[in-house]
Amino acid sequence: MFQSFDDVSDASLGAARVAGLREWLAANDLDGFIVPRSDEHQGEYVAPGSERLKWLTGFSGSAGVAIVLAKQAYIFVDGRYTLQVRDQVDLGVFTIESLIEKPPPSWIENNLGKGARLGFDPWLHTVGDVKALKAAAEKTGATLVAVERNPIDQLWQDRPKPPLASVEIHPIAFAGELAKDKLARLAQAIGKQKATHAVLTDPSSIAWAFNIRGGDVPHTPLALGFAILAADGAHQLFMDKRKLPTETEAYLTQLADLRAPAGLESAIIDLARSGAAVSLDPALAADRLRALVEDNGGTVISAPDPARIPRATKNKAEIQGARAAHRRDGAAIAKMLCWLDAQKPDTIDEIATVTQLEGFRRAVGEETQMPLRDVSFSTISGSGPNGAIMHYRVSRATNRKLGDGELFLLDSGAQYQDGTTDITRTVPVGQPTDEMRERYTLVLKGMIGISLLRFPAGTRGADIDAIARLALWEHGLDYAHGTGHGVGSYLAVHEGPQRIAKTGTEKLLEGMILSNEPGYYKPGHYGIRLENLIIVTAAEQLPDGDIAMHGFDTLTLAPFDRRMLRTDRLAPEELAWLNAYHARVLSEIGPMVDGETLKWLEAATAPLA
Amino acid sequence: MFQSFDDVSDASLGAARVAGLREWLAANDLDGFIVPRSDEHQGEYVAPGSERLKWLTGFSGSAGVAIVLAKQAYIFVDGRYTLQVRDQVDLGVFTIESLIEKPPPSWIENNLGKGARLGFDPWLHTVGDVKALKAAAEKTGATLVAVERNPIDQLWQDRPKPPLASVEIHPIAFAGELAKDKLARLAQAIGKQKATHAVLTDPSSIAWAFNIRGGDVPHTPLALGFAILAADGAHQLFMDKRKLPTETEAYLTQLADLRAPAGLESAIIDLARSGAAVSLDPALAADRLRALVEDNGGTVISAPDPARIPRATKNKAEIQGARAAHRRDGAAIAKMLCWLDAQKPDTIDEIATVTQLEGFRRAVGEETQMPLRDVSFSTISGSGPNGAIMHYRVSRATNRKLGDGELFLLDSGAQYQDGTTDITRTVPVGQPTDEMRERYTLVLKGMIGISLLRFPAGTRGADIDAIARLALWEHGLDYAHGTGHGVGSYLAVHEGPQRIAKTGTEKLLEGMILSNEPGYYKPGHYGIRLENLIIVTAAEQLPDGDIAMHGFDTLTLAPFDRRMLRTDRLAPEELAWLNAYHARVLSEIGPMVDGETLKWLEAATAPLA
Repeated sequence: MFQSFDDVSDASLGAARVAGLREWLAANDLDGFIVPRSDEHQGEYVAPGSERLKWLTGFSGSAGVAIVLAKQAYIFVDGRYTLQVRDQVDLGVFTIESLIEKPPPSWIENNLGKGARLGFDPWLHTVGDVKALKAAAEKTGATLVAVERNPIDQLWQDRPKPPLASVEIHPIAFAGELAKDKLARLAQAIGKQKATHAVLTDPSSIAWAFNIRGGDVPHTPLALGFAILAADGAHQLFMDKRKLPTETEAYLTQLADLRAPAGLESAIIDLARSGAAVSLDPALAADRLRALVEDNGGTVISAPDPARIPRATKNKAEIQGARAAHRRDGAAIAKMLCWLDAQKPDTIDEIATVTQLEGFRRAVGEETQMPLRDVSFSTISGSGPNGAIMHYRVSRATNRKLGDGELFLLDSGAQYQDGTTDITRTVPVGQPTDEMRERYTLVLKGMIGISLLRFPAGTRGADIDAIARLALWEHGLDYAHGTGHGVGSYLAVHEGPQRIAKTGTEKLLEGMILSNEPGYYKPGHYGIRLENLIIVTAAEQLPDGDIAMHGFDTLTLAPFDRRMLRTDRLAPEELAWLNAYHARVLSEIGPMVDGETLKWLEAATAPLA
Repeated sequence: MFQSFDDVSDASLGAARVAGLREWLAANDLDGFIVPRSDEHQGEYVAPGSERLKWLTGFSGSAGVAIVLAKQAYIFVDGRYTLQVRDQVDLGVFTIESLIEKPPPSWIENNLGKGARLGFDPWLHTVGDVKALKAAAEKTGATLVAVERNPIDQLWQDRPKPPLASVEIHPIAFAGELAKDKLARLAQAIGKQKATHAVLTDPSSIAWAFNIRGGDVPHTPLALGFAILAADGAHQLFMDKRKLPTETEAYLTQLADLRAPAGLESAIIDLARSGAAVSLDPALAADRLRALVEDNGGTVISAPDPARIPRATKNKAEIQGARAAHRRDGAAIAKMLCWLDAQKPDTIDEIATVTQLEGFRRAVGEETQMPLRDVSFSTISGSGPNGAIMHYRVSRATNRKLGDGELFLLDSGAQYQDGTTDITRTVPVGQPTDEMRERYTLVLKGMIGISLLRFPAGTRGADIDAIARLALWEHGLDYAHGTGHGVGSYLAVHEGPQRIAKTGTEKLLEGMILSNEPGYYKPGHYGIRLENLIIVTAAEQLPDGDIAMHGFDTLTLAPFDRRMLRTDRLAPEELAWLNAYHARVLSEIGPMVDGETLKWLEAATAPLA
């Protein structure tokens, strides 16, 4: 299994660890220390040795911050984790704060006294974050102190060593563009930013630029490392050579000067001293990098990671790979949904469905000789009330049977060498209620609204997020998450910068892959989410139109449950979309399945009237 | 007439005036000077003596900037004015630049050399603007120099004196809240901003806070002035007493220390020296104010004008006033549309329609004893190709007949003491083409989409702008302006901060008045725009809904032209909205008109099938 169902956290260790940190504070003339969940690369998944927040607090969520003072300690989490954090941390040690309502900067402004000294590890906070923290501290007369060595790393006895998963070359058949050509494009882009160099700190960007994949963090094939790209082409890649098989090392040596990670700081210092203008993405780069450049006479150019837009706009080979990956994944999903239909209510549980689904994905991968490399995230397998927990992750403690009359929400994804998938379907267990069917149909209408949309060049994700909500809004309903996130190409399943959400300020460009996943959640009862991946298509000139319009093409191939549909609530064009989609699912997935599954698929995709 | 049709600009004077400015530059050791269109209050309309950009360049548009260097001179305008500027300025003197593609900060970055000294008048640029200009200058090694006295004011021989229009008290019946209560609310808000004082620089805020109206600028009943509000209630109002009738002066004296405008700078200096924390809106306040505070030991609190949200969320009396104003305006519009219908093609011209409309508004105002105080902006009366010019203003030079087979776009508004109106209707002259009717129907669908919308608390204007475009997008069409702007209560017809547009980051709150005005423009042929004013209604709990939802209520009362409608393209709920709206127009406007107009109105609002 690529996923575990263990509860790994232990709240009881927090008190002693916080006490240890407090001794360190006293010895180092600091009044407090801030411990974020992020590592040096700001990714969603971090290596075990970077789980400092979890080590200190017990909290295992994917976002959070702790601030430890001499007498008090605080943990900041967002709405997803307000319940989980209470189970995982010692409430005698930590006070819970809201990461959204009162994030650390405003907490600092309201809680730190004049003269207070708050320590932070400048490798674990971005330039932008530190700017906000410092501005807040300044207002209240406190000081933010960058520490040279993270105290957690000193206190953590059995801290896991940095991961050394083998790094493979991502074949040109899937990458679609040679690394040397990508690097030449990036060098040009760096010049356009009026920089001499750019530091890539996001391992997704490094994986994309060098056409390599690794295995240093769960569920995302990243090889942790840094790169300094140069406008003049003299690139440097900082990556532990023990991760590199001979052929990967030989390959990378053609593209860049291959150096040990420990050499990064001195390389930046050398560049700065020679007067380099170093491009850093303020939302991604560690503040330590800014300080190294500025303190050594260099200039910081604050600019987006030059790889993020080229990486987000998939090329022909990547799109072809995504389509193949989605056919493969669709066959596994068809098997899964067929299997689910055959189970009686109250017989199987959430963990069993996760295991079953991974089994189907492995089987189809083996049959098609394109093995499942990993799941792209821990499957969200939520029955009944668990389905209403938006970021639910099943553990042995929360596991429950799929009960009669409940809804079952299954949100899962896979990593194949040719593409990353992410799909959610919601199915009834036994007989659904009218309310469930009505709300399912409203969610589907929102999803179809995005699927049918045409939009001019320059439209941003933020501009269209509401389209997916209109049908729900009409009935006084909504969902408390964005409509879609970007997805990588055999990379992170949550990949920026594109996004369909109120915060989606990036333009939607041809070739971007996004999820289209409206939902509806009735806390304590059930959750509904429907998710397809979609890709932004080339602008097309419509008959009689003035301007060419972009649209979306759907990648995901799996039926929507007919038992949940109120077809009388669908507009003619919505029903037409659904029938055409189901016909496509049958024609693309049908040839990949047989027997019971094929029979099931034919019934599931038959035209609706 | 409240509107003139003269071409007031004279390009031939630019050369000599620029030469004069260049002499001043040389004498003052400056390499250039920047001349914005704005005055000290950053409003859309400015007093004649503040039309510095027009005096220097001849350009009369509502937005623009000039930069004059020793050898070159540049004028920056946006897309609305690219044609107009060519007619109005001497192209031998000025090079035209885009205010959007290359605004002054990026122009400075790319064009000013190291050591260049660019002068600016710190009263005419906001804190935010100067920050951007200075950052740009810094990058290129140039310096921005604040001048003590604006050179234009020294060179301009017959410069009009500041306006002294009489200031009246805005009656409580229309204002709905006593000024002393508003000022107490503002004092509290200033305290919450952690400021001791706030400078109100926007005359709309002063008019709202003190319940006064003036006549210092065209079409908006503003009394130019400044106010320093204090958290402790010791307010100061800086306004020329010559504008104040005895009763207004007596009234204002109860609310604030009444001081001469010339005393503002020393008052700010005094406050700063006493350690005041002064709240300034970086998007509204002149940079001069920031400098006065900071240079004299005070602290600047960068925060929104505390009056803008209270002013934008209309109270019951203001809403009641708006409804009455819109009934009155609707009666005038009904007379106008009835009159228009009776005219033969090729007989009347654009100016005649403007004159006729103002006559109807005056007549209805007199009948109802609520006289037309002003038009709320220069009527846009565009026939045929002129309708495709989004911000067209008819002059004797551009005036043309309403020709057979053309569309006629009429965008106008009124100022009554109880409310400000703004309405656009597009009507056919003779027989419209199928294309015109189809596109009119698409625009109407967008408008109805907004009218029918329900949305959760917290939704911003930016989130829903696309709803008005969906029908057009489906056919490869769009419009290059926002969907709606805020509207004041017997104040500015363009009033922030609310807005339905990609840039509308403000939440839509109960009581905000906005326009709902999608359009379609075929350059060289015709323009279509349909505009109603709408008001955000209280969140309403829907049956079976989870959350209470806001919606919009339509204020404007005037039929949509049946000859332009493709009712077969309307969804059932769209047709139902239209029929219900027309029924309401008849029931509210019918009693206010008679004879031919009533007959016309009955026919125009009859149910459509």
